[in-house]
Amino acid sequence: MKKFMNTADTMVAESVEGFVRAHEALVVFGPERRCIRRRHLIAGKVALISGGGAGHEPMHIGFVGHGMLDAACVGHIFTSPTPSQIIAAIEEADTGAGCLLVVKNYDGDLMNFEMAIEMAGDRHNIDMVVVSDDIETSRSGEGNGRRGVAGTLIVEKLLGAAAERGMSLAELKQLGEGLNTRIRSMGVALNGVTVPQTERTTFSLGAGEMEMGVGIHGEPGHARQPFAASDAIIGHLCETIAGDIAVAPGTRALLFVNGLGGTPPAELYLAYNGARRFNEERGIPIERSLVGTYVTSLDMQGLSVTLALLSDEEIALWDAPVATAALHWP
Amino acid sequence: MKKFMNTADTMVAESVEGFVRAHEALVVFGPERRCIRRRHLIAGKVALISGGGAGHEPMHIGFVGHGMLDAACVGHIFTSPTPSQIIAAIEEADTGAGCLLVVKNYDGDLMNFEMAIEMAGDRHNIDMVVVSDDIETSRSGEGNGRRGVAGTLIVEKLLGAAAERGMSLAELKQLGEGLNTRIRSMGVALNGVTVPQTERTTFSLGAGEMEMGVGIHGEPGHARQPFAASDAIIGHLCETIAGDIAVAPGTRALLFVNGLGGTPPAELYLAYNGARRFNEERGIPIERSLVGTYVTSLDMQGLSVTLALLSDEEIALWDAPVATAALHWP
Repeated sequence: MKKFMNTADTMVAESVEGFVRAHEALVVFGPERRCIRRRHLIAGKVALISGGGAGHEPMHIGFVGHGMLDAACVGHIFTSPTPSQIIAAIEEADTGAGCLLVVKNYDGDLMNFEMAIEMAGDRHNIDMVVVSDDIETSRSGEGNGRRGVAGTLIVEKLLGAAAERGMSLAELKQLGEGLNTRIRSMGVALNGVTVPQTERTTFSLGAGEMEMGVGIHGEPGHARQPFAASDAIIGHLCETIAGDIAVAPGTRALLFVNGLGGTPPAELYLAYNGARRFNEERGIPIERSLVGTYVTSLDMQGLSVTLALLSDEEIALWDAPVATAALHWP
Repeated sequence: MKKFMNTADTMVAESVEGFVRAHEALVVFGPERRCIRRRHLIAGKVALISGGGAGHEPMHIGFVGHGMLDAACVGHIFTSPTPSQIIAAIEEADTGAGCLLVVKNYDGDLMNFEMAIEMAGDRHNIDMVVVSDDIETSRSGEGNGRRGVAGTLIVEKLLGAAAERGMSLAELKQLGEGLNTRIRSMGVALNGVTVPQTERTTFSLGAGEMEMGVGIHGEPGHARQPFAASDAIIGHLCETIAGDIAVAPGTRALLFVNGLGGTPPAELYLAYNGARRFNEERGIPIERSLVGTYVTSLDMQGLSVTLALLSDEEIALWDAPVATAALHWP
């Protein structure tokens, strides 16, 4: 395990400190560093808040800023932030119009975000959207169904743009829940990862193997397969996604190829090229694209493919300006 | 060697095609795909052109767009583009005010860019800036001195902003050459990389080793050392850089921590945190920062640190708007 770190106990705090220092024009720490919020809050706008375990950077802290999140909190590696962190984010970010929490569908996250709502609900108007875009973690049959993975970025971008335009808390919740039914992701890993604090490797792969259907916490996938050509891997991911989502004629699609931490940009672009061709050949025209390392699983080599089916209005929300550390366009 | 690719012969072309398709609002292919140019050229502006071997993505194609490069060409992996590719870029991008070529200091690149100037010089007004920021490749004593590595991004960003403001070819060349004397980089690798076409691994490291002073083509560094804590590694890089560059009082510094392809964002931020503290403790205040995977060496795990000493005017050029695939701010 070779990682740029000093001690396992301090690595999350040091990394987050580096992030805040590198982006001090965009973000600031909340009190006692329990959350990170955008530097310039907007009074009267619904506050959009997210968070989750560390090890997925730049998600979510890299999405804090104009047009996306108002605050985010970071737990230990692959561990939910505590209710007190989430409450700190609510207190920091709520300017009077209420808060919408965007939560990935994991038991630990759900429990802590729900507890925060319960504890802060008498002082703040709070609601929650749960993201569950990972089609494979539902097939594995463990617990609470689909997990939230890279598609969370799309939900946070669109809700962020809508909140910036003045959408109400109830409308944002409805938008987020609708979106979640039309976003699907699936991932593949070329290696397992080691969690520094436990020094446990999530799973081990041989030199010629890959793990199909992995989650972002090193959950094993549904099948260990021989490593293959990119088009075969990507074709399988895209086919599984297309088989799980109702693509109506005239659908407008966003294709997102996401690196899991150890995969270089050149390979992501090659994979995207295959994914785009696959979808277009099957009558799914790709109107918007995102390629890069946004939702990671430590230094995992691998990637995920996400397909989102969007309305005209949702495409406009995707195109709306965003200025965060990880996503920014005019 | 597990990489997302189909065949070694087609991997560069497929990856570049994916890049262009993902960013079709910003860039287009030139004729016969010999170069990539920004979609909207500006008449009367000096054209800024760069290029180099593949395997370093997003450099240089990710820097094509408003406020940075007008065109770039991509060779085979770790191999210079041909003179005919460079001439195609010149012909595509020159709108009448001449062309400045930004070339990394490698024998192969110099030869091909100089040949292109010779062959197209009767029809175009062309000059060249050579970037040589890598302090370690000079110490290794091989050939033509310092090589151009991650600091090339800074030269291209500042020249791009200056060209956009209407600076002349002669002034741009002078600015670029001045900058090159005040930018230094040094890298460390945690593994060697395998070039797909040759299937040769550039160097091999044991589980507890790292290579200090690597270049971006898998050139071995000046020392193989036991792997260490991040602060020790980063301290060594920063100290070597500070010892090689004249830091005057009142200097304004830009600190750039660059991932070499396989290092996740969280580790880069942790490394940046140490680098920033190291410099500030030695009286080098960091006024601008960049952290991310911009100049890669295939899927190498590792990073480089770059320090650039800038004038007020150069800081303003850094802050000027840029809209490319890899760098964009308002």
